[in-house]
Amino acid sequence: MCSLPVSRQPLRRVAVTGGTHGNEMCGVYLAKHWLQAPGELQRPSFSAMPVLANPAATAACRRYLGCDLNRTCTLTFLNSTATPDDPYEVTRARELNQLLGPKGTDQAFDFILDLHNTTANTGVCLISEASHSSFNLHLCHYLQLQNPGLPCRLLQNEPPGAETYSVESVSKNGIGLELGPQPQGVLRADLFSQMRTLVASTLDFIELFNQGKAFPAFEIDIYRILGRVDFPRTTDGDLAGTVHPQLQDHDFEPLRPGEPIFKLFSGEDVLYEGNSTVYPVFINEAAYYEKHVAFLTSERIRVSVPALPELTSSSTLAP
Amino acid sequence: MCSLPVSRQPLRRVAVTGGTHGNEMCGVYLAKHWLQAPGELQRPSFSAMPVLANPAATAACRRYLGCDLNRTCTLTFLNSTATPDDPYEVTRARELNQLLGPKGTDQAFDFILDLHNTTANTGVCLISEASHSSFNLHLCHYLQLQNPGLPCRLLQNEPPGAETYSVESVSKNGIGLELGPQPQGVLRADLFSQMRTLVASTLDFIELFNQGKAFPAFEIDIYRILGRVDFPRTTDGDLAGTVHPQLQDHDFEPLRPGEPIFKLFSGEDVLYEGNSTVYPVFINEAAYYEKHVAFLTSERIRVSVPALPELTSSSTLAP
Repeated sequence: MCSLPVSRQPLRRVAVTGGTHGNEMCGVYLAKHWLQAPGELQRPSFSAMPVLANPAATAACRRYLGCDLNRTCTLTFLNSTATPDDPYEVTRARELNQLLGPKGTDQAFDFILDLHNTTANTGVCLISEASHSSFNLHLCHYLQLQNPGLPCRLLQNEPPGAETYSVESVSKNGIGLELGPQPQGVLRADLFSQMRTLVASTLDFIELFNQGKAFPAFEIDIYRILGRVDFPRTTDGDLAGTVHPQLQDHDFEPLRPGEPIFKLFSGEDVLYEGNSTVYPVFINEAAYYEKHVAFLTSERIRVSVPALPELTSSSTLAP
Repeated sequence: MCSLPVSRQPLRRVAVTGGTHGNEMCGVYLAKHWLQAPGELQRPSFSAMPVLANPAATAACRRYLGCDLNRTCTLTFLNSTATPDDPYEVTRARELNQLLGPKGTDQAFDFILDLHNTTANTGVCLISEASHSSFNLHLCHYLQLQNPGLPCRLLQNEPPGAETYSVESVSKNGIGLELGPQPQGVLRADLFSQMRTLVASTLDFIELFNQGKAFPAFEIDIYRILGRVDFPRTTDGDLAGTVHPQLQDHDFEPLRPGEPIFKLFSGEDVLYEGNSTVYPVFINEAAYYEKHVAFLTSERIRVSVPALPELTSSSTLAP
């Protein structure tokens, strides 16, 4: 894999969105806090805008009310005519598109950092589209260097089909920040503090980028989503078992053919029947039961990332 | 504290209820499994009846639809006239009262074991009313002896006011079994297996009791609920911080005056201002945010439990 160099236009219009899923509490309370006290989001060359992405779901402490906001920011939804029957999140996606987009245009925000929690033991996980990979890979590398105690992995997501759907896809570039494990509806101080630190590091990276700092080339392991694996089910479609104890909590670790993936309620083990080693992620994420996903599979890829050269053009501006 | 000996009437009519809260997945899936395959719940002297207590909330994977079923089994609700505006759980409580009660009558079931999960790091926690303490304390002691790898604690709950409200209060005796930590909406194989083992041990204990086995006297530490502590809040009533990292996950461990209990979003610590050591439980339980409870406080009490003598009367019956 070869990543192309990114353009060196400074990122002036940056948003940090929390509460895209209303029961993922770190982003919810960071966004609420920053809306009252935005000073932490200021840097010399820009001020990131805090946004509570899904206020109604946040008030209800649910992932969503009508449909998943983080699957709703497609051009199809955003550009369709509003109707009284639209789910709340479709309406809200259009509002976010007005605020942070319009998606796919020059008027869109330069960067959205969208904050998430997962019940899976992912640690720090950046979710990025391939088309943004070079900038986002430099960001991931910076976060790794700045926060050596926090394993930080980049998961590359290529939505099936051409159309992107995430909240951050409304902006020109963007990234999702997942932090786990944290139960839905629970705010853990340790994860809250970690996410706050990671957001600060992200803004610091953007500031250095805007100031024209050179970032050298490096190599990094990333994970690319391959597919999804559903739970074992009864003929009625209900669960017949759950994630095997040997797989539970082992996100981003190798899963080899023949290793157990599920424990049936009958006591039997279900083994992984693939042909090659994969790296499961989002293992036993609460919100994915309804999506029929027990875990995603990914492949680990070594990537050579070219340098971001020192900025010399007029694109760096005084603060 | 001195517990009175219990009567030695065999327990013939026993129920195991799961899914009282529809997103506490161990009980949900144990109940569903046993409804298909009840053999595990059979013992020589009785067969426990599996009950999915809140099917509608289970289908929605929510704690409840209208109100908390585990606070609704009061005589006031159970005996009031049904109206079309009754919340779903009030109607369901009356159905359970028909099936397992009527509460407070001789026709009621002898014992209900009600299965729960918590996001708090409680390990195994039996919740019992004081009036049932002698039998339930012997049960707790039996579970401790049978499952030495699982710390098992008894939490004594005296609901404020005279009226009991839990699902198990519908039967003549009963106990709640809490197992944590597990996120809402997630089924962990390790906790599922633990709960299954604990239910089996509970039924084994009832079988031994029914067979007239003598249980010697013993001493045990129990925990008695003292009160509840809310999160720090803003003037708007929203969270101003969350459980301190030094308290998080330390259920049933001593909390001394002056030790931190909350970390404010501003960075400051909030210290425990009580006069004496307490034992916090249900620390950062997701479902208690809306109840304005960050954790419960309890006191630890050493209890002498009298023997259950060998049964000699005609009250033991052949299977």
